[in-house]
Parts: sequence; structure tokens; C-alpha cells
Amino acid sequence: MTKFTDPVFQAQNSLRADVNYMMEDFLGAEGITSQEIEAIGQGIQTGVQSLKLRRSEMAWRDLPYGQASVVEEIKKFAGAARERFANFVVLGIGGSALGPLAVHQAVNHPQYNELSREKRGGPRFYVLDNVDPERFAALFDVIKPEETLFNVITKSGSTSETMAQFLIIRSLLRQVLGERYHEHLVATTDREKGNLVNIARAEGYHLFFVPAGVGGRFSELSPVGLLPAAMGGIDIDGLLAGAAYMDKWISESESLWDNPACLRAVLHYLALRRGKNISVMMPYAEGLKLFADWYAQLWAESLGKRFNLKQEEVFAGQTPVKALGVTDQHSQVQLYTEGPFDKVINFLAVDRFRQVVDIPKDFPEIPGAAFLGGHSLNGLMEAERQATEYALYKARRMNTTLFLPEINEFSIGQLIYLLEVETACTGELLGINAFDQPGVEEGKNATYALMGRPGYENKREELAGAAAKLERFLLRRKQA
Amino acid sequence: MTKFTDPVFQAQNSLRADVNYMMEDFLGAEGITSQEIEAIGQGIQTGVQSLKLRRSEMAWRDLPYGQASVVEEIKKFAGAARERFANFVVLGIGGSALGPLAVHQAVNHPQYNELSREKRGGPRFYVLDNVDPERFAALFDVIKPEETLFNVITKSGSTSETMAQFLIIRSLLRQVLGERYHEHLVATTDREKGNLVNIARAEGYHLFFVPAGVGGRFSELSPVGLLPAAMGGIDIDGLLAGAAYMDKWISESESLWDNPACLRAVLHYLALRRGKNISVMMPYAEGLKLFADWYAQLWAESLGKRFNLKQEEVFAGQTPVKALGVTDQHSQVQLYTEGPFDKVINFLAVDRFRQVVDIPKDFPEIPGAAFLGGHSLNGLMEAERQATEYALYKARRMNTTLFLPEINEFSIGQLIYLLEVETACTGELLGINAFDQPGVEEGKNATYALMGRPGYENKREELAGAAAKLERFLLRRKQA
Repeated sequence: MTKFTDPVFQAQNSLRADVNYMMEDFLGAEGITSQEIEAIGQGIQTGVQSLKLRRSEMAWRDLPYGQASVVEEIKKFAGAARERFANFVVLGIGGSALGPLAVHQAVNHPQYNELSREKRGGPRFYVLDNVDPERFAALFDVIKPEETLFNVITKSGSTSETMAQFLIIRSLLRQVLGERYHEHLVATTDREKGNLVNIARAEGYHLFFVPAGVGGRFSELSPVGLLPAAMGGIDIDGLLAGAAYMDKWISESESLWDNPACLRAVLHYLALRRGKNISVMMPYAEGLKLFADWYAQLWAESLGKRFNLKQEEVFAGQTPVKALGVTDQHSQVQLYTEGPFDKVINFLAVDRFRQVVDIPKDFPEIPGAAFLGGHSLNGLMEAERQATEYALYKARRMNTTLFLPEINEFSIGQLIYLLEVETACTGELLGINAFDQPGVEEGKNATYALMGRPGYENKREELAGAAAKLERFLLRRKQA
Repeated sequence: MTKFTDPVFQAQNSLRADVNYMMEDFLGAEGITSQEIEAIGQGIQTGVQSLKLRRSEMAWRDLPYGQASVVEEIKKFAGAARERFANFVVLGIGGSALGPLAVHQAVNHPQYNELSREKRGGPRFYVLDNVDPERFAALFDVIKPEETLFNVITKSGSTSETMAQFLIIRSLLRQVLGERYHEHLVATTDREKGNLVNIARAEGYHLFFVPAGVGGRFSELSPVGLLPAAMGGIDIDGLLAGAAYMDKWISESESLWDNPACLRAVLHYLALRRGKNISVMMPYAEGLKLFADWYAQLWAESLGKRFNLKQEEVFAGQTPVKALGVTDQHSQVQLYTEGPFDKVINFLAVDRFRQVVDIPKDFPEIPGAAFLGGHSLNGLMEAERQATEYALYKARRMNTTLFLPEINEFSIGQLIYLLEVETACTGELLGINAFDQPGVEEGKNATYALMGRPGYENKREELAGAAAKLERFLLRRKQA
């Protein structure tokens, strides 16, 4: 038995979901009634049941299990690579970047790259998830390619941004390393499809595979996320154990009222029906800041759909917003408490931070400073979270809280899995396909056309023939 | 004449505002008509005129001018401090943090703190804008207080988070430095109000002042933003010159159709009236990523208001969303093109990046890679921006673009000033006070009560007497 499978550890690190402040019992007419939830009846049954039935089509639901051999391979590979390289760089975008970033930030030191190699115990950690030339060039002002391992991650093996980065870096590595350049590249991609797997095989890169049927935004618990996590020294068994624990909780729930993922899904669905078209993710922990980014992709791409499964035009979706406590109390909370009744605010709370910082009792004569003395930053953070929740409740604004006893691999694994199932369940209730993204094709094709890719001549003509912009709607300063 | 006042430089670095894809001419019934804009007539006149009339009440509008002596003092102070200190840390939150962060990221090197001291030319740059104990403690794993200058920024001089950080750091500095600790503290605060100014005077910290009548979120061009910028080696004359240039453009516009701030305000106002309750800020440049955060505070706190100026309950506001091109094409654009017609997307585009990165012509036999070769990341970034804009236009989604010829002090100064006036103008059209934030009082008071601050006993009783949460809405896993 490892720590993560010890029932005592599990009980101490189990998430809790609080939905009190979604309900009529607290918000009055602005809240949701238990009857409303029950009355969906058929909808819930359809949604939750079909989610159970269709589990076989959702390969990502089984990622907590059956990866023993790939987990061993990842650990072995990462163990050696952590010794050998000074820097580790993920080349990926979207689902290939957001999960690795969120998990790294959550579990590892907040100033990871600035620590000494000794304190870090492994290479510096970077994710290049954009093609901005300034940022790309800047990275090579602080890392040397010959000391760096690059993990190229693209499930399709054909993502333009990632392939462009790969082409540049491969060329750079060949210049400085000659024949041994391939040792600095590790690819994570589909086993069969796409260009990357062929190139990697031909040139001898180490390869990891995204399991079939696991889409980008549901891939964090596959090698897409596990390899970067292991490279950052994170215990990937803990992530998977947390996910398995949450899967059991969800799967063994006898009622919707015990099922945190599906109850939260139903509440968001009902909120959407009442016109709450915004869902804010607001962790009260710097370590969870990038989880709001990860969630934003999951929620937006999964639910933002023009057509439902019956091919009716529905323009579904709820726009995710990223916020951070306590920081955004000084930026967004004014709007959340006084603005339109158009959102659900989802707090993430942490019971025990991994550090305690005390506030000294100085300036007893100054009331505005004296009341802080003798408390800790921990206490202040918690008081502010509770105060904000209370202020929203008093203003009758829907809000939920997910509690993490502590930020660690096990709690993070639970959080990932919970939000993934919640998203899938909301998709079922909306009657849409949560696992595709047809809306990005137009932009991709237009990019190909603008880049002169053969085969996209018609699209290029379409673009050229589009109505020209009008000068009167393009404002320039008249020079003196 | 400096570079920034040279008409040729100014013309080459002037922003442009494109609102074509807000209009009926392109979006059909989903767009706004010129007639609609004209028909607001009285509203525009009221809004824009009252903004002109009330300029005397908006001290921030005059920040581009009349700061010559404080600018000199900042330059002198920063010049010496950049030599002396290894690290510079802002202690601030909200308006005291977001502007300094956005400007630093925009103008300076993307890996600034990881550069050598020599390349950087000054201290490492940090902003502590939260009271998270893990992040707070972590900073002191990588910096030594005795090598660090701390800039405590709070206009009111009583912000709990900032004062708590200040108390801890003051105590720490006294421990390691004894009597000379005060040389490591510089305060930016109100000249008269609050605790900080009194403490700073009593203990001999260098002091800079937030001009009267300049609220936190409109303070970036005051010493709040100028001192951190100067500490990062940024030419603050350029920021102010850019703002002055934009002020002239706005003020000298003879018609709404020439005024980028007010025309954009009218368009957002009309969009809001049509139910677009979301405004996305999506820079296509990593350097502008944090400008979306800065904008989010400006837009949310200024416009999110329960009451209008007539004290009628209006629950006004448009929720800002932060996005980033091209990264969020793989996260948010699916929703933007296929989801509800509930948002305006505001792109920021950069004509010339400060780096060019070429993509090599390898793999001519693989079409998915070959089309990239011979282009640059710059070209790819621009093609993707145009393609996304085109895809949104085809899906009839409202979008605007602000073009920056290049990211530099002058263009950034323009951008700040434009968005500030745009926000104020939108507030006028909505008939609300864009310069207060009454909605945060409830949370502040509840925090004081929970922290046991004397004088808040009644609030504490109110909190204790609030309806207790119900166990049935608090989900815990039943342990096996």
C-alpha cells in the first residue's frame, strides 16, 4: 500500500463540494429549488445514465487505471532525463499545455525555475504554448538547446503551431548537436495518425502515445500530462490515485445528491436555463491559478456548440471566466456583487496551505494595522474567502465551493477528474457532443489559405473575395 | 525634441482602431447600424459632452501633463536604486499591481528575471499581489531581503492585504538590517489619508504620492505605475508622451466617428443593450497578455454597478474575459464562434514584433509541415489572427481590433489612455458612476469582522447569525 491508497490519507485528502449558495434555501427566488432539480428527472436520468452507458466511448474515464506499464516507462525515462538535462520544455498548445502547466504550478514551488538546481532536483520547466516570436526567441536567451529536452506534444501530430516550433527547434538542435540531436526530442502523439509519429520513428525520438479516444482537453491524465509532471518531479501515481478515488465516488453514488460532478452539472445546467451564461472559476490559492485556465478550455470547447445531437441549431455554451482570490476581490468582485445576475461563481478553497506566514503585532496604536497582528496570512486568506462568499450570498449571487484539504497530487487528481466528469455530464444535459470542436475548422482552414498551403486555393479565393473593410470604420489619427 | 515627441516617430507608432466587424455592413442583422449610432444622438452628446465638461473631476485625464518634477524625482530615485538593489518587489493589489505588471511584461524581456544582471541592467522585478502564504514564503527562497527594495503601494494607505505584507516585510527587514531597514522601503500612497503615509514619514521611507482624485484603476500613469516602470528600466517619458498623444487625438476629434475611445464606448454600449454581456480582451501578443488583466479590472469595477446616478437599481456591467492569441484559439474560439451570441471580442494586434523567427524548409514530402517552411512565426501569428477574425466575422460575431504598430512605451501609453477614456465614456452612456466601488464594502467589513477588528462586532454577530449551511448541500465522500 502506498500513501495514496491508504484509507486514512485518502479520507484526510478527500475533496468536498459545497452547493448551498446555489439554492433557494439561501438565495430566495434567485436560487434553485430541490424540486427543480428533482423535476428534471428524466433529464438527469438521461444525462447521468447515458454517461454511465457511454463510458465505453469515453476512454479518458479509464485513464486512472490500466496505465501501469506506461507509468513505469515514464518514470524510468523521466528519472534519467531529470539527471541529464538542465531544462525541460513542452512544445504544445491547448490541451497539450494547459494541463501540464496547471499541475506543475499546483504541486511545485511557486518560483521553481529560480531555485537552485539542488533545491529543484531536476531541470527548469517551461511550456511554449504560443508562436509569439518575441517569447520564442526570448527563451533561448536563458536556455541552451544542448542542455535541454523538448517534449513535442500534439495528439493529431499536425497542429500548426506545435509543428512550427518543432521544425525550428529540430533545426537548432541539429546545428549545435549534429547526429545526437534526436536524444533531445521526445514526442507525445497518436500511435498511428499524423506526421509527428512518422518523423519521430524515422529519426529515433523517444515516443509516448495519447491513447485512442482521449481528446486533447481530457488528456491530462494520459502521457500528455504525466510525462511533464514526472519531469517536474511530481508523483504521477498520486495524480492517478486521486482520479481513481474521485471516479469511485462518482460511480458509486446512489443518488444525484451524493454525486459531486453530476449535481454540479445539473446546477450549472439549471443556472444556464435561467440565463446565467457565465461561469467564473475563482481559486483562493495561487497554486490553483492555472487550473482556472485549464477549466476554461474544458468548459468552453466542450459546451460551446452550434448544434445539438439532433442537429438542431442551439448555440449552446457558458463562457468560463478566470479569476483569483484574494487578488481579484480588487478587480472583479465589484462586478460580481453589483452587476447583472448573469453568472455562477465557483470557488476553489484550500484548507491547509503548505506554508504558514505570521503577521507581527506591530503598530498597536494604528487600528487599521493592529487588527492584522497575531493572525497569519493563512487566516487572512481564509477570512477573505469566507467574507467574499458571504457578500455574494447577501447579494443573492449563485456560488459554489470545492474544498481541497491541501494541494497535493492526490487532491489535484480528484479535481481534474471531477471537473472532467462534470463537463461531460453538463454536455449530456445540454444534449450536445462535448468531445468535438467543429468550430475551429474555419479558422484553421483560413490559416492554411493565408499561409499558401496547397489544397486551400478555394479558401484563399474566398478570403480574397470577402467584402473589403470600410475606411470609415478604421480610425487613424490625422497627423498634424 | 525627444524621440517620443518627434512627429515622424509618432506617426509611425500611432494606434489604429478597426470597428468594421461590429457593423451591420458586415454582420447583417447581428451588427450595429450607423443609424443606431447616430440615433443615440442625445446619449452620445450627453455622454461625450459631459465627459468633456467633467474632465476637471477626472484628475487621471491630466496625468500625461504636469508631472515633470515627480518624473524627475522618480528617475533620480530609480537610477540609484537600480544600481544598489538586486531585487525590486511591489507590494500592492488591484490597481497597484495590474498596471505595473502589464507595462513591465509589455516593454521588458519575456524572461526578465532569468537574464543575467548585466543583460537586465537592473534588479529582478516581482509583484506580490496576493496574501497566499505559499507564494509569499516562496519569494524569500529566491530573494534576500537585504538585497531588495520593496515598494509598498496603497492609495488609501489601509488596504488589508498590502498592509499585512508590509508588516511582515518591515519586521523581516528590521531583523536582518537593524536601523537601516527603512532604506529598503519606498511607499506610494495618498499625501494625507491613511496609515501608510504616517508610518512612512515617522520611519523615514522615501515617499511618492498618488495625486488626489486619481482612483486605483486609473493610476497607472501616476507614480503608482511610473516608479515600478522606471525601476524596470522603462522610459516613463515615452509612456506619458503616448498618453498625451492619445489624449490629443480624443480631445481634438471633431466627430464621434474620429474618436476611437468614444466610438468604441458607444459600440460596446449598443452591444450591451442587445444583450452582449461579455467583453473579451484577446491580445495577439504575449507581451500584451497582462493588459487583458489590467483591462478586466478597469472594465469590471468601473461599469459593474447596482445603481445609476439617479439611484435607480440597474445592475449594470459587462463581464470582461481575458484571452490570448493564438493560444486560446485552442481553448476559447470554439465557444466564440459556435456558442451564444453574447459577447464582443476585442483583439489587440501588433504590426511589427521586436524579433523575427524563421521556420526552416524541412520535410518537403510532408504537406502538413512543408507549408510552414519559409514563413516565419511572425507570419504564422498574423495569419492566425486574420483567420480567427475572419472566422468570427463569418459566424457573425461582433469583434474589434486595436492595432499597435509595435510594443513600446509610446504605444503602451496610448493604449492605457484610450482604454481608460473608453471605460469612462461607457460609464457616462450607462449613466453610472465609473469611479467608485461600493460593492466591495460588504466583503471588506465581513473580513474585518472575521479577523476580530474592533468596531466590527455587529457585523460579526450578523455573520454568526446568518442561516447555517445545510449538510445535504455539502457533499463528502462516504468512506468505505
